[in-house]
Amino acid sequence: MSDKPISRFPVPELSDLPEDIRARILSVQDKSGFVPNVFLALAHRPEEFRAFFAYHDALMEKEGGLTKGEREMIVVATSGLNQCIYCVVAHGAILRIREKNPLLADQLATNYRAADITPRQKVMLDFAAKVSLRAYEVCDADIEMMRHHGFSDEDIWDTGAITALFSLSNRMAGLTSMRPNDDFYLLGRIAKE
Amino acid sequence: MSDKPISRFPVPELSDLPEDIRARILSVQDKSGFVPNVFLALAHRPEEFRAFFAYHDALMEKEGGLTKGEREMIVVATSGLNQCIYCVVAHGAILRIREKNPLLADQLATNYRAADITPRQKVMLDFAAKVSLRAYEVCDADIEMMRHHGFSDEDIWDTGAITALFSLSNRMAGLTSMRPNDDFYLLGRIAKE
Amino acid sequence: MSDKPISRFPVPELSDLPEDIRARILSVQDKSGFVPNVFLALAHRPEEFRAFFAYHDALMEKEGGLTKGEREMIVVATSGLNQCIYCVVAHGAILRIREKNPLLADQLATNYRAADITPRQKVMLDFAAKVSLRAYEVCDADIEMMRHHGFSDEDIWDTGAITALFSLSNRMAGLTSMRPNDDFYLLGRIAKE
Amino acid sequence: MSDKPISRFPVPELSDLPEDIRARILSVQDKSGFVPNVFLALAHRPEEFRAFFAYHDALMEKEGGLTKGEREMIVVATSGLNQCIYCVVAHGAILRIREKNPLLADQLATNYRAADITPRQKVMLDFAAKVSLRAYEVCDADIEMMRHHGFSDEDIWDTGAITALFSLSNRMAGLTSMRPNDDFYLLGRIAKE
Amino acid sequence: MSDKPISRFPVPELSDLPEDIRARILSVQDKSGFVPNVFLALAHRPEEFRAFFAYHDALMEKEGGLTKGEREMIVVATSGLNQCIYCVVAHGAILRIREKNPLLADQLATNYRAADITPRQKVMLDFAAKVSLRAYEVCDADIEMMRHHGFSDEDIWDTGAITALFSLSNRMAGLTSMRPNDDFYLLGRIAKE
Amino acid sequence: MSDKPISRFPVPELSDLPEDIRARILSVQDKSGFVPNVFLALAHRPEEFRAFFAYHDALMEKEGGLTKGEREMIVVATSGLNQCIYCVVAHGAILRIREKNPLLADQLATNYRAADITPRQKVMLDFAAKVSLRAYEVCDADIEMMRHHGFSDEDIWDTGAITALFSLSNRMAGLTSMRPNDDFYLLGRIAKE
Repeated sequence: MSDKPISRFPVPELSDLPEDIRARILSVQDKSGFVPNVFLALAHRPEEFRAFFAYHDALMEKEGGLTKGEREMIVVATSGLNQCIYCVVAHGAILRIREKNPLLADQLATNYRAADITPRQKVMLDFAAKVSLRAYEVCDADIEMMRHHGFSDEDIWDTGAITALFSLSNRMAGLTSMRPNDDFYLLGRIAKE
Repeated sequence: MSDKPISRFPVPELSDLPEDIRARILSVQDKSGFVPNVFLALAHRPEEFRAFFAYHDALMEKEGGLTKGEREMIVVATSGLNQCIYCVVAHGAILRIREKNPLLADQLATNYRAADITPRQKVMLDFAAKVSLRAYEVCDADIEMMRHHGFSDEDIWDTGAITALFSLSNRMAGLTSMRPNDDFYLLGRIAKE
Repeated sequence: MSDKPISRFPVPELSDLPEDIRARILSVQDKSGFVPNVFLALAHRPEEFRAFFAYHDALMEKEGGLTKGEREMIVVATSGLNQCIYCVVAHGAILRIREKNPLLADQLATNYRAADITPRQKVMLDFAAKVSLRAYEVCDADIEMMRHHGFSDEDIWDTGAITALFSLSNRMAGLTSMRPNDDFYLLGRIAKE
Repeated sequence: MSDKPISRFPVPELSDLPEDIRARILSVQDKSGFVPNVFLALAHRPEEFRAFFAYHDALMEKEGGLTKGEREMIVVATSGLNQCIYCVVAHGAILRIREKNPLLADQLATNYRAADITPRQKVMLDFAAKVSLRAYEVCDADIEMMRHHGFSDEDIWDTGAITALFSLSNRMAGLTSMRPNDDFYLLGRIAKE
Repeated sequence: MSDKPISRFPVPELSDLPEDIRARILSVQDKSGFVPNVFLALAHRPEEFRAFFAYHDALMEKEGGLTKGEREMIVVATSGLNQCIYCVVAHGAILRIREKNPLLADQLATNYRAADITPRQKVMLDFAAKVSLRAYEVCDADIEMMRHHGFSDEDIWDTGAITALFSLSNRMAGLTSMRPNDDFYLLGRIAKE
Repeated sequence: MSDKPISRFPVPELSDLPEDIRARILSVQDKSGFVPNVFLALAHRPEEFRAFFAYHDALMEKEGGLTKGEREMIVVATSGLNQCIYCVVAHGAILRIREKNPLLADQLATNYRAADITPRQKVMLDFAAKVSLRAYEVCDADIEMMRHHGFSDEDIWDTGAITALFSLSNRMAGLTSMRPNDDFYLLGRIAKE
C-alpha cells in the first residue's frame, strides 16, 4: 500500500529542498520516526510550506487556555465534518497520543456530538463546527455561550482560528488528494509500557 | 459609520506592534492611502499575522498562468459563496482595479455563473467553488476538466490554494466580525482620468 | 459591455408595445434617465408585465409601517440569498438612494446578519429570509417575534409579501438571464451636492 | 373541520369587498360550487389580489404549447418540493380534473421523478424544479435540453414563469397559513358518469 | 394504468412462494380485497420479506401509548419528507381509515407542521422528523421534550423505531421503484354508511 | 470508560431474556470473545431484536456476487455519511478483519470517494450513497451504471437493501445513543501471526 502516490502534484526529493525546509522535515522525522506526508506534499511550494507551518505552529504548539489535546479535538471534529481523510487520520493519531485515549479520535471524527467529552468541550466543538460550516452566521450569542462556559476571548480566537486553518488544510488535502502515512492508523491505539 | 468596531477582538495600536508588522502596515498605507482593516484585526496575533500575509503574498502577488485579476476573481466568487462581507468588499475593490472593470466584482460576488467572464474563467471558478464547498468530492475528472481548458498543473494548484486560503480568511472574518473600510466600497468604480 | 443581451428571450422594440406599457416605460426613463432592463425583458409578455408591476407598485410604493428603504432592504437581502444579480444590483442602487447610505446594499446582499442595521431590522430580515428559503416552516412563533419587535400585522404581511414577490422576480431573472443596466452599479454611491 | 381559520390574517366579508373582486369570487363560486380559500385570504389586500389573479390567468388559462394539464403538473410538482399544502391540495384537484387522472397529483406532489408522466414531461418538470430551487444555476444547457425535447421558447418561458408565480404563491400560503377547502381533497378522484 | 410494473426486480407468482408467505399474502388479500404491492415486490426475497413484516408487525400492530393512527402519522409524515410515493399513498390510505379523517394524510405527507394535529402530536412528529433526517443530532433535550409532552420512554422508542423502519422501507421503495396499487388512492376518502 | 451506559433505554440482563435471544447472544460471545452492545441494546425489544437480526443475517451472511468484505464496505461508507459512531466502529472492525486491511475502514468512514478501493467498488458505493441519502432520485440510469460495471440485478438489490437496513440501524443507534464496545476500536488493526 505504501507505494500509492501521496499527492496529485509533484513531490520533491528531500535533497532538492531549501535548507530550512529540509531541516524541518528531518527534525520531524527524528521525532516521529517517519515523515508525515503533508510535509512532502506541501514542500512542492516552499513559500506556502513555510507559511502553513508557521501558522500551524502558532496555533497548535502554544500554551494557553486550550490544552494541546483540545486543539487536536477541534482539528479532528471539523475535519470529520469536512470528510478529510488526511487530517482525520493524522491528527486522530496525534489526539490519541496527546489525550492518551485510544477511542476519542474515532468518535470525534464520526460524530463529535456523541463523543466522550465534557459539556464544556462539547460547547467548544459546537462553536468550531459553526465556524467551519457556517462562519457567516457566527454572532455575539455564540461568543457569549463560549464565555459562559469559561472560555477566555483568547481561547475563543484559538478555537476559531484553528478551525479556520484546518478549513484551509482540509481543502489542500482534497486538492492534492493527500494520502496519510500508513503509520498514523495505529499510532496511540495501544498503551505503551 | 467609521467609528464602528472593526473586530470583535482587541485591535492593537500601530505603536504597540512589532517593527516588521508596523513596517508592513505603513507600507500598505503608503500605497493605498489607508490601512485595510484586515491588517489591524489580524495584528492582534503577530505570529498568525506574519503567517497569513506570507501565505497571501505567495499566492496573490506572484506571476504565473493565472493573471492577478483572475486570482482576485477566485477570491471574490468563493467569498460570495461563503457570504463574507470583508472579503467581498475589499477584494471586490482590488478586482475592479486589477481588471479595470467596475461591474465584475458585484456580479461575481452574487452569482459567478452569470458574470461577464470567459468560458475558461467559468471553468476555473467552477473548480474553485467545488474546492470551497465540497473539497472532499474533488476528483481526477475535475483536474482533467481544468487541463482541458488550458490550465497547467501549477495553475490548478494556484486555483485550489487561493480558494483554500480564503476559506481560512472568510472564517477569520466571521470569527472576528471583521469590518471592511468604508473606502473599499467606491474604489475602482470610476475610471481614472 | 452595453451590447450584451439583456434577456435570453426576445426583447420588444418600444414602438411595438401596447400604449400603456410604452407609457409606463417612458415615464420611468424620464424619472431615472434610463430604462431599467426588467421593463424591457418582461415586456415580451404584456399581460404578465402589467401584473408584475401592479404587484410591485402595490407593495413597494405604498406608505405604511415599513419605510420604503426597509422594503428595499428586504429585496436586496433575499435576492442575495437567491444569488440574483439583477435584483441585487438594481435594488441595491435604489436602496442606496432611499437610505442615502452607500454601504448598506453591498452588506445586505452578501450577509444581512452582519450589515449596519438595527436589531429590529435584523428581525425583519430573519423573517424575510425564512419566508424566502423555508416558508413551509413559518409558524406562529415567527409572527410573535415580529410583533414583539413592534411590527403590526400589516407590516408582517408586507414583509412576507415583498419576499414572495421577489422570489418570483429572482426566478424570472434566472429564467431570462436578465442583465442589469450598467448604470445601476454606480448609482447612489457618491453623495450628491 | 370546516370552522378552522383559513388565514392568519383578517379575512374580509364578501359584502365588504370592491365590486370587481366580489364579482370574480361569485363567478368562481358559480363555476366550482364553492369559493376556494385563496380568493378570500388574498382579498385582504385588493390590489395584490388583482395583480395575483391577473398573473395567474395570464399563465394558467392561455392556450399554447403546454396543455392546461401540464401547467397544473408544474404547479403540483414544484409546490410539493416547497411543501405547500394549499397549492398541492387545490391544484392537485384541478390537475385530476384536467387530466382525468385520479392518481397523478398524489404522485407528482410526492416525487415527480417517479410519476406516470412522459419522458418529455419529466424534462419539463426537471426544468421547473431547477427554476424553483436553484434558479441561479439555470444555464443555456438547460434551455437546450428543453428545446431538444420539443419545447418552444414560449413553452420554456411558460414553464419557468408558472414556476416563478407559484414560488410566490407557495410563500404567500406559508405566510398566511392558508388552508385549502375540504372540498378539494376529493375532487376528481371519482370518475363522473 | 394497472399494467405498469410494480417493481424494477422480478415479482414472483403467488404459486411459487413459500407456504408461509403465500398464506400471509392471501390473508391480507382476504382482509383488504387486494394484495398491496409491497408484499409482492418484497416476496422476491423470502427471508427479507419475513424479517420486514415481523419488524413491521412488532411496531405497527401493537397496543401501547401511541394509537395505531399515530403510528401511521409517523409513517406518512416521514415518508413525505423522504419523497416516497409508495409509503405516502399506501399508509396515507391506512391513516385515513384508522383516523376516520379523509384530509389528514395529504396534509401530513406535504407538510406535517401545518397539519390538523394536536400540539402533542406535532412534538412527536418533530422528533420523528429529526430521527429520519438527522438521527446523529438526536440528544437528551429531544428525549426530554417528548417526556415533557407525556410520552413514556416506550412511546419514544416506538416513535423512533417506526421512523427507522420506514427509513428502510422508503429506501427499498426507491431501490425497487415500488408502485402503490391504484386501490389505495381512494381508500378512506369517503365516509362509509 | 467501560462503565458508560450503552443505551438511553433499559438494557436487559442476559438471564431475563427469552431463550432464543440468550442463545444467540451467547453464541456471538463465544465467537467474538465479547457481546457487541447492539445485541444488548436491541434486546430491550425481543420481537424487534429477532426481526433485525433475521434481516441482518439474510443480507450480510449470504454468499453471492458481493463478497462479505464488500457488504461491510457498504455499511461503513453509508454509516460514515450518516455520522453513526456505533456502526462505523463496530462494522469498521469487521471490515478490517474480512478484508485483512487495517486502513480501509477509516478511509471509507471518512470519505469513501478517496479510499483504497477498485473503480467497480467505487461505483457500488456511489450507488449505496445515493440510496442512503437520496433514494427518491434513484433512476434507471443508476441501475444501468451498476450493470455496466458487472453487478447482477441480485447484487444491485443486495447493495440497496444493505444500505436500507443500515439506514434503519444508524437511526436506531442515534435514537438509543448506542455505544460501541471499546473492544472494536483495535480489532483487525494488527496482523495476527
